[in-house]
Amino acid sequence: MEIVKVLHMNGGMGDTSYANNSLVQQKVITMTKPITEDAITQLYCSTLPKSLVIADLGCSSGPNTLLVVSELIKGVNQLRQKLRHQSPEYQVFLNDLPGNDFNTIFKSLPSFQKKMSSQLGAGAGPCFFAGVPGSFYDRLFPSKTLHFVHSSYSLQWLSKVPEKLEGNKGNIYMARTSPPSVLRAYHAQFQQDFSMFLKCRAEELVLSGRMVLTLLGRRSEDPSSKECCYIWELLAIVLNEMVSKGLIEEEKMDSFNIPQYTPSPSEVKSEVLKEGSFSIDCLEVSEVNWSVYNNNDGYNVAQCMRAVAEPLLVSHFGEAIIEEVFSRYREILSDRISKENTCFVNVIVSLIKKE
Amino acid sequence: MEIVKVLHMNGGMGDTSYANNSLVQQKVITMTKPITEDAITQLYCSTLPKSLVIADLGCSSGPNTLLVVSELIKGVNQLRQKLRHQSPEYQVFLNDLPGNDFNTIFKSLPSFQKKMSSQLGAGAGPCFFAGVPGSFYDRLFPSKTLHFVHSSYSLQWLSKVPEKLEGNKGNIYMARTSPPSVLRAYHAQFQQDFSMFLKCRAEELVLSGRMVLTLLGRRSEDPSSKECCYIWELLAIVLNEMVSKGLIEEEKMDSFNIPQYTPSPSEVKSEVLKEGSFSIDCLEVSEVNWSVYNNNDGYNVAQCMRAVAEPLLVSHFGEAIIEEVFSRYREILSDRISKENTCFVNVIVSLIKKE
Repeated sequence: MEIVKVLHMNGGMGDTSYANNSLVQQKVITMTKPITEDAITQLYCSTLPKSLVIADLGCSSGPNTLLVVSELIKGVNQLRQKLRHQSPEYQVFLNDLPGNDFNTIFKSLPSFQKKMSSQLGAGAGPCFFAGVPGSFYDRLFPSKTLHFVHSSYSLQWLSKVPEKLEGNKGNIYMARTSPPSVLRAYHAQFQQDFSMFLKCRAEELVLSGRMVLTLLGRRSEDPSSKECCYIWELLAIVLNEMVSKGLIEEEKMDSFNIPQYTPSPSEVKSEVLKEGSFSIDCLEVSEVNWSVYNNNDGYNVAQCMRAVAEPLLVSHFGEAIIEEVFSRYREILSDRISKENTCFVNVIVSLIKKE
Repeated sequence: MEIVKVLHMNGGMGDTSYANNSLVQQKVITMTKPITEDAITQLYCSTLPKSLVIADLGCSSGPNTLLVVSELIKGVNQLRQKLRHQSPEYQVFLNDLPGNDFNTIFKSLPSFQKKMSSQLGAGAGPCFFAGVPGSFYDRLFPSKTLHFVHSSYSLQWLSKVPEKLEGNKGNIYMARTSPPSVLRAYHAQFQQDFSMFLKCRAEELVLSGRMVLTLLGRRSEDPSSKECCYIWELLAIVLNEMVSKGLIEEEKMDSFNIPQYTPSPSEVKSEVLKEGSFSIDCLEVSEVNWSVYNNNDGYNVAQCMRAVAEPLLVSHFGEAIIEEVFSRYREILSDRISKENTCFVNVIVSLIKKE
């Protein structure tokens, strides 16, 4: 396992600034593959659809945008061969925000489809692709039309920066020094967004339809726990330094907050139970040590975080400060990584649509 | 009526170089509106779908890409209000080649959807949009999932330049001086493409599903008739002049042919009957005089033709000759338009999916 989730956090942000982490991305897919494969197998056997409709929510537009989908389809194809069933047709919906670079995905589709159909072999149904622009915190599909929903490293992104973060001066995310009102505001926004997500998908999925969701999260019940907040605290240190040197206006810094929430498994579970449309097939946590991926120089972690944070920083502070921010951030990361044992945490949940 | 079809011929070509003919485009929609409205009304009443699925094939990416679709949905909404039915949900698939600029369409969707929902008023079902990249001469959707297919000014584009056009020296399309073998080759390619189109859509449409197709065509049974070929003959004159001045290689000119076929109504009818999946609800022809739109200066017709022909010319001859070509073309058009009465012809066919 590796520091991989941050590479994907941009899924929900519609940004596409990096596309060279294919190896890492492949490893994430390998990591969640048992859960995903189990879910699609159960789905296929319980619904036996003529057209199997799959949606990837927060698909981004890297070279591996289509990787999960191709694994899912290959899994179903092996299963239906084993069961000696005629192949279903496949319809795949790729969703991200309207600013995502769908053109690049679409241009890569003809060669991808060719490769897929040669890998699947004769007798496999055709795969039809469509791009769906829009926020997954709103309805995206007609009622009861989806069989399988997949989302990786997108759902930790909130629909907006929470309101009432005035008390968060000096911080840019939940932090050990954040007052309880700030932690409550973040949690409330997550609850509102995640339950809206569940409600929308519940309308769109068929009975017994499945979802496998992977979020960046935490083990601890403390929302300001180091495992999820420390990486942003280090960025806040950089920004505060730059404020004190007059490179960033203090007011600007005070009003900057990251629209993210990294939930614990029990918080995810609690929202699922409250919303009521889904039963939980499995809920898992996995950990990833920062240092595995970065050779102790901070460079790779900084690059990952840059891909995630740059669009947010640019839209708030402008282009001018970016190089300076990430040069300082790289330095501080490399210092801390060599001294501390720091983790990212994945929360993976597999859900079944109830009657 | 106006010279409007050529403005849209790029639909099937995936090009997006012009987006300032919104007035003209609106007029085309007005022109075919009675047929389209009749078709969707009959469709709605015969299928009463919970989700109404519409596909626009060759949607291009101008400011009016969404205009036909919005007219269709408004029509259904008025009808269901009159009938006191609960509104269906709407799912709209926008198709064009993978090179089409879907990003631009997608960025315009949030404001379009807002406007639509305020125009439709309370009680109207939500409209979900998806982009589908690919050739409509191949399958694009799962079986029996579409209710209504619309296509404007795209189906006269062939899937490729016909083979065996060696005898067409000096011409770039069917022309009065083309030998019969060339006319046969063009017709054969049209038959192959159009019947493949019908076959694919027959799989995808539900029973009683509808298609309204508008093609650039001709009235005459002569495929080299002036009404459809003259505009390309004038462009051939320009290219031949440039060959004789050494500005274009003769070999290059000889191998350049436009991948288009402008069928007569009876040719369209014949393919529909031969393929066998559709009955014809109506088949109409309408004419458009060149001079209506261009104020006799040739400029507007040349601009329309440039939008259509430029990508083809650039990919065959390169960028360098383009300005010279269209400056000469403009001149020759303005000369001929003032002297002759020349028409474009639309063929409009409304089809019903049979059992």
